[in-house]
Amino acid sequence: MTTVVDSRPALVEQWVATELGNSSYVVVDRNSGDAAVIDPLCDVDRYLAAARASGWRVAASLDTHVHNDFVSGGPTLRAATGCVFAVPDSSGIAGVDRTLRGGDELAVGSMSLRAIHSPGHTPEHLSYLLVDADGTPLALFSGGALMVGTMARPDLLGPSWTYALSRMGRETLQQLLTLPDALSVLPTHGGGSFCGSATSNARVTTVGAERRDNPLAQARDLAHFLAIHAKQGRYPAYYARMAPINRAAEPGAATVTTSQLSVAAFDDAVAGGAIAVDCRAYADFDAAHVPGSLNVPGDGPFSAWVGWVVDIGTPVALVAASEPAAEEATRQLRRIGFHDLRGWLDAHDWIADGRATATVVRCTMGDLAERILDGEHVTVIDVRQENEWAQGHLPGAVHALAPDLPGIAARLDRREPVAVHCATGYRSALGVSMLLREGIDDVWHVSEGVEAWSALGYPLVTSA
Amino acid sequence: MTTVVDSRPALVEQWVATELGNSSYVVVDRNSGDAAVIDPLCDVDRYLAAARASGWRVAASLDTHVHNDFVSGGPTLRAATGCVFAVPDSSGIAGVDRTLRGGDELAVGSMSLRAIHSPGHTPEHLSYLLVDADGTPLALFSGGALMVGTMARPDLLGPSWTYALSRMGRETLQQLLTLPDALSVLPTHGGGSFCGSATSNARVTTVGAERRDNPLAQARDLAHFLAIHAKQGRYPAYYARMAPINRAAEPGAATVTTSQLSVAAFDDAVAGGAIAVDCRAYADFDAAHVPGSLNVPGDGPFSAWVGWVVDIGTPVALVAASEPAAEEATRQLRRIGFHDLRGWLDAHDWIADGRATATVVRCTMGDLAERILDGEHVTVIDVRQENEWAQGHLPGAVHALAPDLPGIAARLDRREPVAVHCATGYRSALGVSMLLREGIDDVWHVSEGVEAWSALGYPLVTSA
Repeated sequence: MTTVVDSRPALVEQWVATELGNSSYVVVDRNSGDAAVIDPLCDVDRYLAAARASGWRVAASLDTHVHNDFVSGGPTLRAATGCVFAVPDSSGIAGVDRTLRGGDELAVGSMSLRAIHSPGHTPEHLSYLLVDADGTPLALFSGGALMVGTMARPDLLGPSWTYALSRMGRETLQQLLTLPDALSVLPTHGGGSFCGSATSNARVTTVGAERRDNPLAQARDLAHFLAIHAKQGRYPAYYARMAPINRAAEPGAATVTTSQLSVAAFDDAVAGGAIAVDCRAYADFDAAHVPGSLNVPGDGPFSAWVGWVVDIGTPVALVAASEPAAEEATRQLRRIGFHDLRGWLDAHDWIADGRATATVVRCTMGDLAERILDGEHVTVIDVRQENEWAQGHLPGAVHALAPDLPGIAARLDRREPVAVHCATGYRSALGVSMLLREGIDDVWHVSEGVEAWSALGYPLVTSA
Repeated sequence: MTTVVDSRPALVEQWVATELGNSSYVVVDRNSGDAAVIDPLCDVDRYLAAARASGWRVAASLDTHVHNDFVSGGPTLRAATGCVFAVPDSSGIAGVDRTLRGGDELAVGSMSLRAIHSPGHTPEHLSYLLVDADGTPLALFSGGALMVGTMARPDLLGPSWTYALSRMGRETLQQLLTLPDALSVLPTHGGGSFCGSATSNARVTTVGAERRDNPLAQARDLAHFLAIHAKQGRYPAYYARMAPINRAAEPGAATVTTSQLSVAAFDDAVAGGAIAVDCRAYADFDAAHVPGSLNVPGDGPFSAWVGWVVDIGTPVALVAASEPAAEEATRQLRRIGFHDLRGWLDAHDWIADGRATATVVRCTMGDLAERILDGEHVTVIDVRQENEWAQGHLPGAVHALAPDLPGIAARLDRREPVAVHCATGYRSALGVSMLLREGIDDVWHVSEGVEAWSALGYPLVTSA
């Protein structure tokens, strides 16, 4: 939590969920203590604890748009506090107190949040301009309409929307960039979000910086805007589940809790249909893991990858190295709508109990290169995004993102090793665990990226 | 049919099947009239007619390797003539008269075909060196071991074979290039074959030309060889069906025949499970076609695309503009193992009979650009191969080869147009007809390639 605006009476705190690449904001009028939360996540206990500690009253919760990447905390915040739940007009969100159109204002003590219709990421999208009692703009909560160096992607409603939303988005951008140069821009989507292609890790910017540096602002016409903006990578499968949930807008639990499972209880959960998801570092997973478990390390976009390969309705039993790690994993899964979380197993207990473990063969690019250049049989799978693959990949490699591996597993040669790599070992860890679940035994986890192949003096191939 | 070697007593005729990108060869010893056929297709009536006309005796039929792209004519030629059917040792082909290893010779009158083990495209692959009675080499039948400017792909047995076959292939290439510079090289696979990535339309070459110009011959080590050779596009699905058929080696009909269907008989065929395949030019198909029919124009790699989207066991009823076109389409389908061909309907009869026809909306890139830049909804699908896509595509387009369209059809927005393009209108014609079969009504056939988008001043995007 970072203070990003501090000009009496306004205080704005930014709450970053790095696994989502998103920020929520708490806006406070320090004179009255009235607070509004913008784009809250559903684990609202954190905002409530901060408000309690500081003596703020949560008066409103606002969504900038119908979120596709997480479950809005608005309904839960409203249920917990009685605050006003405000959303864009024509968003189709149920159970709201106010629907806002461009120009509408919502008071936060003596200040106001003024809605600016800013379609582009989605059609109903609003940005909120925080103005003081004199009407002086203090900050722009831009949602996905203006991100650091980009704007949020135009294709989440499907590829038929790309051009329409891009055209709207370009007009939105031009409109927002008429605001004062010095104005703080506080986006919801940032670096690491699959909702955009941010190349910066900065999570705040200014109108002036964006007017100067945002490539989309430089595009001389819509065709050139599209050439930048309508080029996006693939995004997690769970996104398709979020908008209906956010429109239904049922309140949930404000607090995230999890319970530790005994080995027997874990067995029961798995026997009852739960999928085992191991959130430990891949080094630990590779050394010894529960057979059949998926590995999505907690030190990355954990929920995005779990939600890409496991439907949010599936029961999940976590495997973790510690209670804090299990709690964080639980929190992240709750945020994207997993609602049947059966608890967590301490990996040490499994081993201490003498239960059978599986291991993964780890290798370097050098090991893989040796096998390849010896002319041995091996299938190489590159699980990176298309743009990474296109820039340079190992000759003869198969390109398939981890979620696609079950679909190609039947065609893989099971008599010979299957080596999986990405850029860092993170995504390949998931890929490896998915192949093991498909019954492919001889899987090699290559924990280096293609630059290690290049460093050996071997050429990469591009897609073109 | 072209004479490619003519030096008494040797005569070699090349029979090109452009739809396969392949050549078969008839080798004749003019002193004795003995002839051998190398890599014959299964419609052997053509070779037999030529032999009859010239007074040759077909003494042998040789395969260079277990073909993955067509049904060998060897078994049928043997059944029709009693000739020797000779294949590589360890090819697993049944019912043969001789299995050859490197160094083995097979006489053609006073000349001999000397087998050279040349693995790379497949492990058992043989090339055949034609030598005269003095042992002087006259020509090399290189199969897929040496093509004009390349060698045949190393991945048809699956990606786990790529490195092993590439390593063997590099050694094969080095060995073959020690033959005399002036020696004619007569490959089976050539330009247009999905078995290789030939960039030349030339179908004959020499050892010297290949030593000088073949990029694979220049690769300084296996890693650099792989960077050229282990980069291949996708290939037709029917390939997976060919090796088992060629190993079973059952003789078939020597002659291709087809019968014209009345409209009623055509209806019966379709009602009985036949898929309607229209081999007319796409302009004709777009103007009026039998609802539910696929369009694979005859003036291109017809059989490759039919065999990519229709299993060879499926009954097929052709729609054609003329009897010669229907016969050619039938011949091509027979060559890749379609064996339940129900005959052909003259498209004029359908129309003359007053039957309902369907049409396709044709448009230019300019029409599509107008819709895109007006910000209208439209899904753009680019059905080209990955390397073409990677070099430059329309922003916001979806990349899916025609065979993949049924798999994505359920996710397409059916309320808005779906525009399909390739490079020339040929592959998009198939894509359009497949989407229509999926019940998507508003399909636009863009009959221009991406260069037309560029020519309008609009930028393309690359994959990298």
